[in-house]
Amino acid sequence: MAADPLVERAATLQALCLAAGLRVATAESCTGGLVAHLLTEVAGASGYFRGGIVAYANEAKIRLCGVDPALIEAHGAVSAQVARAMAVGVRERLGADLGCAVTGIAGPEGGTPAKPVGLTYVAVADPRETTVRRVLWTGDRHENKRASAELALELLIERASALSGEGGPRSEAGPDEPGDGPRASPKA
Amino acid sequence: MAADPLVERAATLQALCLAAGLRVATAESCTGGLVAHLLTEVAGASGYFRGGIVAYANEAKIRLCGVDPALIEAHGAVSAQVARAMAVGVRERLGADLGCAVTGIAGPEGGTPAKPVGLTYVAVADPRETTVRRVLWTGDRHENKRASAELALELLIERASALSGEGGPRSEAGPDEPGDGPRASPKA
Repeated sequence: MAADPLVERAATLQALCLAAGLRVATAESCTGGLVAHLLTEVAGASGYFRGGIVAYANEAKIRLCGVDPALIEAHGAVSAQVARAMAVGVRERLGADLGCAVTGIAGPEGGTPAKPVGLTYVAVADPRETTVRRVLWTGDRHENKRASAELALELLIERASALSGEGGPRSEAGPDEPGDGPRASPKA
Repeated sequence: MAADPLVERAATLQALCLAAGLRVATAESCTGGLVAHLLTEVAGASGYFRGGIVAYANEAKIRLCGVDPALIEAHGAVSAQVARAMAVGVRERLGADLGCAVTGIAGPEGGTPAKPVGLTYVAVADPRETTVRRVLWTGDRHENKRASAELALELLIERASALSGEGGPRSEAGPDEPGDGPRASPKA
């Protein structure tokens, strides 16, 4: 089969994490397990990937990731606050160094004027800080899932690089978004 | 893109579950999130899919699925007993009607003479019973993951059909395996 470029990125992340002794855990809503699937396509993933949560229903976000229900009530499941809480929660619960979370609206249903289809938050938590990136994809459901998974992989690679002291600035990725401000994003 | 036949099977499961009001949760080890990813490729999956756990590390099986560590100690993570406990645990924890679990050795590493690469257990739990199927795939890592995910989908469809009273016998699938006995399996 032709190599999936996202599996190639997963292999890059794996090499970085194994070299630096970093363990990774994932919490996924709109990507529905795709990030974990990509990580585990690479032989040897069990050396650094602890596992993940597919937090589709809010109950899964609350019971498995430890997200405060009040946070979902106040900001909605698709929000920077919930993405952050999912990343922090899964990192702690799975004893990982890096926690990555994705929450968004893959479509075609579920969008609103305030939170349209394609709106997605990707968070990465390490022991010192948690950052969140806000994007707005314009593809179909399948494409939006892939784009979100790719962004999750890139942010994990960035963070793993920084933590392992091997990484320089990544010109195409730009700075992490610390808050919930808007960020225009091209179609992936 | 060409339709993935496994996504077609996920769509069949979704139609069955939505019609019968059945909610599904997944617990995946060797498939690494692939089953959840396939389920969530279908628009409207949130109507019946509660979420899942990617229980790669044993700690994830214990902390997130509620598997008794003594069970892993006694039988190993790749065993009918652990598959059963994962299916029961994820069903209860996510408030689902059907819990599906997959644990196996996708390869290429991790095999032993007693538990070779490709050995996989797939369990399905409903409120009344839990069944486990044992298979031995002979593909590469990617193929073994796909074969296991396909079997998980077929067993979920079988069970959802039975529970919804819509299903007749499925000649190609054969009966569920109640225990841990060997079952020869062709390459998927």
